[in-house]
Amino acid sequence: MFETRLDRVREAMATADVDALLLSVGPDLPWMIGYEAMPLERLTMLVVTRDTEPTLVLPSFEVPRVVDRPGVFAVQGWGETEDPVELVAARLDASAGGGTIAIGDHTWSRFLVALQHRLPDRKWVSSQTVVGDLRAVKEPHELDRLAAAASGVDRVAAALQGGEIPLIGRTEAEVSAELGRRILAEGHAKVNFAIVAAGENAASPHHHPGDRVIKPGEVVLCDFGGTTSEPHGEPGYCSDITRCVYTGQPPAEFLEQFDVLADAQRMAVEAATVGSAAASVDAVARSRLADADMDQWFLHRLGHGIGVEAHEDPYLVDGNQEPLSAGNVFSVEPGFYIADKWGARIEDIVACTADGPRSLNQADHALAIVEA
Amino acid sequence: MFETRLDRVREAMATADVDALLLSVGPDLPWMIGYEAMPLERLTMLVVTRDTEPTLVLPSFEVPRVVDRPGVFAVQGWGETEDPVELVAARLDASAGGGTIAIGDHTWSRFLVALQHRLPDRKWVSSQTVVGDLRAVKEPHELDRLAAAASGVDRVAAALQGGEIPLIGRTEAEVSAELGRRILAEGHAKVNFAIVAAGENAASPHHHPGDRVIKPGEVVLCDFGGTTSEPHGEPGYCSDITRCVYTGQPPAEFLEQFDVLADAQRMAVEAATVGSAAASVDAVARSRLADADMDQWFLHRLGHGIGVEAHEDPYLVDGNQEPLSAGNVFSVEPGFYIADKWGARIEDIVACTADGPRSLNQADHALAIVEA
Repeated sequence: MFETRLDRVREAMATADVDALLLSVGPDLPWMIGYEAMPLERLTMLVVTRDTEPTLVLPSFEVPRVVDRPGVFAVQGWGETEDPVELVAARLDASAGGGTIAIGDHTWSRFLVALQHRLPDRKWVSSQTVVGDLRAVKEPHELDRLAAAASGVDRVAAALQGGEIPLIGRTEAEVSAELGRRILAEGHAKVNFAIVAAGENAASPHHHPGDRVIKPGEVVLCDFGGTTSEPHGEPGYCSDITRCVYTGQPPAEFLEQFDVLADAQRMAVEAATVGSAAASVDAVARSRLADADMDQWFLHRLGHGIGVEAHEDPYLVDGNQEPLSAGNVFSVEPGFYIADKWGARIEDIVACTADGPRSLNQADHALAIVEA
Repeated sequence: MFETRLDRVREAMATADVDALLLSVGPDLPWMIGYEAMPLERLTMLVVTRDTEPTLVLPSFEVPRVVDRPGVFAVQGWGETEDPVELVAARLDASAGGGTIAIGDHTWSRFLVALQHRLPDRKWVSSQTVVGDLRAVKEPHELDRLAAAASGVDRVAAALQGGEIPLIGRTEAEVSAELGRRILAEGHAKVNFAIVAAGENAASPHHHPGDRVIKPGEVVLCDFGGTTSEPHGEPGYCSDITRCVYTGQPPAEFLEQFDVLADAQRMAVEAATVGSAAASVDAVARSRLADADMDQWFLHRLGHGIGVEAHEDPYLVDGNQEPLSAGNVFSVEPGFYIADKWGARIEDIVACTADGPRSLNQADHALAIVEA
């Protein structure tokens, strides 16, 4: 798997006229070599040139963490009084080319600033230039892992919808913590987020769950996901789902709005076919909401790609005319947010396939009524 | 508090001849304005110039997350089809100066690359140039919070040493998860790491806890910490402690080595006085280990500063001749690591004060013997 990725990365480097690729913290590195850098001030950096063996430069005492992959990359440890930026730069001095360098897009700026100081007169671009398109088209085994991740959070959603997770009388933060524990119990290595937004807080799409106590008779919007645990240091894949429940019988106005939202979400999923422009799928949902005069409350884009990273290419947003490809996997998550009143969102992860769109999430889309 | 910090930051900008400071993800931002950027592809960035009101540029629908602090910063939301890099750059076009820009050291490189493309001919430096020294000298209320964080993990350590946390027969990963749950229960908002390394795995200082089952008659090295939860969006502070326990009676050879380590750790803490060079404190521990011919097994520096970030200035490492100041807070954590055999480390967080070094951690330093 990793050998193939290296070949494809080198092809993409040639196409993009990139001479070297430097990867550090973030998902590019585990995707490419199955090793995740520690997010600390001691630099870990994979140096990929077009003509030399890729080398992972990392603290000597972290070398035992690395799963060896002969033929994919070599390892160079650095001691506590060495300068890792100098070690990386020296590798680029030695290699042919070196004009344009692609830097891992999550790499801490302190390291990019230091590299630029040491390597003036180079052109710097983001690693997305090289790996963005490759990561956006999932391999079959990646689809399987994304589907397994989706099934995991589907079960958490079912527990929420089935009333197994108490809501009334608990704080948003407490429910968020329980969702997190259940995500981990479903085969995820980490929780990326667990938004719980009750009542008027549901009008804030990225609400931070806090001390607000959940009451009877209100919407509870839950948007949660994590990254799966995979064997042998292989990269994990992300889940992301949003479901809403109501603590008691919802008012008719909310039910009507929610029905429109569910319709918009279903129509957008159906529109996510190979060759459709990303923006056009966003437009399908927005148009359905507009028919009910609700589009002014749909405050964000329709969706984002997902894979080893929670948000990645392709983005389903107005203006993105790129056509969807078979193998793209993305969220479809329209919502409506009425300030100081309430809000709702329905989100599935969807794979674009030659046989049409396939929703990886199967949890019930209906508004569950939870009295407990 | 935040008003004072802004004044100090502006003074530091003038001293360092920095015209603008741009902060995004990472601890600088919550330290300065009490808001933490979401680590996502939608840019959040605080723009600080010498002569205009600081402005936090972030996605419009995340504006409800922000705790307003009038007089500290203004907010500018951006819509889903706007380019936030352009909005940030335009603010720098408009401001006086703009020659040298300090970029938040954790800022994703994709944004720095985009900003550099839009703002050529500027000089870029790391935000550490401006805020590193300010963050390294803690204010009295910051010392209180670091002490509270330390007390929290002290209680977790006491539970470990007292045999309340079962070890034998469980995997490292299971014990790590339990440490994490206890860290959260002790007032932390998140777990930064919970290393559990049994037997020969204890020879890897940054071991990743895995499926290795803990057996009778071996060392279990536990190094754990998190970030506290604070009210009103104020930044959390980090804890970090390492203690070792033994599952049964240790061999005499290990006990002798551990006694030397404990001695080295105690001597280094005592040496951490105002005005001492950071490197000299490292040397004290290293020299004590050398007396017992153990220094070749001490694979890393003695310690790192700690505050809103788990690792920050000052670093206690060979070569760092900077004198310690009253208000510096850092780890003192010598260890020995014998490949394929065993290892150990003892770590406290220590505050350098005018009255001498003060260990914020009080958990027992002795090697606890846990039979359960």
